[in-house]
Amino acid sequence: VSDEFELIDWIQKCQRTNSPLITLGIGDDLAALKWPADDLLLVGVDQVIDGVHFDSKIHSMNQIGRKAMNRNLSDCAAMGCLPAAAVAAVALPRELSLDRAKELCAGLRQAGDAFQCPIIGGDTASWSGKLVLSVTILGKSAGIKPVSRSGARPGDAIFVTGPLGGSILGRHMTFEPRVKLGREIAPIATAMIDISDGLSRDLSQICRAAGVGAMIDASLLPIHPDAAELSRRDGIPSLDHALHDGEDYELLFTSAGEFPKAIRIGQITSEPGIFIRGNDGVSRPLVPRGWEHQIGP
Amino acid sequence: VSDEFELIDWIQKCQRTNSPLITLGIGDDLAALKWPADDLLLVGVDQVIDGVHFDSKIHSMNQIGRKAMNRNLSDCAAMGCLPAAAVAAVALPRELSLDRAKELCAGLRQAGDAFQCPIIGGDTASWSGKLVLSVTILGKSAGIKPVSRSGARPGDAIFVTGPLGGSILGRHMTFEPRVKLGREIAPIATAMIDISDGLSRDLSQICRAAGVGAMIDASLLPIHPDAAELSRRDGIPSLDHALHDGEDYELLFTSAGEFPKAIRIGQITSEPGIFIRGNDGVSRPLVPRGWEHQIGP
Repeated sequence: VSDEFELIDWIQKCQRTNSPLITLGIGDDLAALKWPADDLLLVGVDQVIDGVHFDSKIHSMNQIGRKAMNRNLSDCAAMGCLPAAAVAAVALPRELSLDRAKELCAGLRQAGDAFQCPIIGGDTASWSGKLVLSVTILGKSAGIKPVSRSGARPGDAIFVTGPLGGSILGRHMTFEPRVKLGREIAPIATAMIDISDGLSRDLSQICRAAGVGAMIDASLLPIHPDAAELSRRDGIPSLDHALHDGEDYELLFTSAGEFPKAIRIGQITSEPGIFIRGNDGVSRPLVPRGWEHQIGP
Repeated sequence: VSDEFELIDWIQKCQRTNSPLITLGIGDDLAALKWPADDLLLVGVDQVIDGVHFDSKIHSMNQIGRKAMNRNLSDCAAMGCLPAAAVAAVALPRELSLDRAKELCAGLRQAGDAFQCPIIGGDTASWSGKLVLSVTILGKSAGIKPVSRSGARPGDAIFVTGPLGGSILGRHMTFEPRVKLGREIAPIATAMIDISDGLSRDLSQICRAAGVGAMIDASLLPIHPDAAELSRRDGIPSLDHALHDGEDYELLFTSAGEFPKAIRIGQITSEPGIFIRGNDGVSRPLVPRGWEHQIGP
């Protein structure tokens, strides 16, 4: 991008900061918000990088912008909070056209707008490298206590909100953040995380945080058709794809209660260590592998 | 960096989140804060990029981490607010050693700690590209109304907090964010900005935001010895370096009052357009150029 200032002007004109929270919107050194006294403020950052989280030769700028925002909205979902506002920093390849940079920003904005999450600040720079885009999100508790990763208790059931595996075939770019579902789950969940690094690794985070273990039942695990398709191509069992692939962006949570909209896949155990009971009835250790966040060679 | 998880563990262990604001610190999907009811929340993001804002072949990882945080602390200074917490996203070159990555994070943390600004969240990824580091800062108004860029009024005096120009010789990496001074200035300032893009461009932002103009007096402009040194090397007048170089990170503000710790350099005019009165008494248009944020060829 050769004219960053034109891009910045355009971004500022597009962004309607109609949130009642915002007292000073995009375009100053910092934005200012009047935070509601009863709401906890949640904050986190997530980035997408060319060749790691997307491939700029395959994916459109709009998709890339959307993914960057949706990853952050998914973090809100995993806490049971509501998105409130976001800021974004983007390192733009110098050869990227102004139109494509605008398309990127439009994708960001559209994904945020779908959840009333305006972009209230940003930083752009052009450079000789590839595209890097980081988004920081602010969420508000809005009447529901945020769900950490660390509250799982022995005997809790383990749930996921949808089928897993094979997201690399395309879903990793097009997933819907489970914000609404996260709000419904939060009151009954003891721990929650969104599945970005893969079930085995994200479950190990929950177990480690609480000093507990888990037993997964292979027969209960919902396997996505993409995992089966990928298995046909690479010969790796679809179960392994469901267990270890990343970027499903479904919610993984533990609860002593029931939640009919989600799928129960196992149980938290007092003894540390994660095991999977196969269809043969034998339990084997489940070693966290997790997706290595790498697209292409 | 080959073992991101080890790096993340180390970061989490180092960070003491002793702020009373923080109810859930680093290590979850999002951090949570209990925001004080009387304080506005300020937020913004700023990134540093290899080859643009630093050169990883010259500057230490600790310096780079510090600069990334200090740029954000300088944004707090420019609003007259106090830093409260920060999150960081870093795209790490795959060949960077774990020790150097730790050094980067330590620099970030040390710069934040100097202003009681803990890092409460982050995202790391390794990739085939060069180092990109973005920091998002949360600031609190803490009893002082934030100063926007847009309140300059005709007749206001224009001030800077220190000598300008030639920061590329080294100060752009080692500057001290003017947080304390910003707090002192805020109650009397009508508009404020930190000089990152160069005086001429940052002043044009202030003028554009208020629909006013400015007259700068060349004889009043404090020229840094680095600008003179650079002038000896490149033949460009040191005054031009003071007017257009960027990354001084001094504060530029307008006020109807006096502020003895800062240097008055001119006056806001009702007629749009920025002019500079030379030592010959003649006023000439001052065309915003601004530093192009480019280190090396």
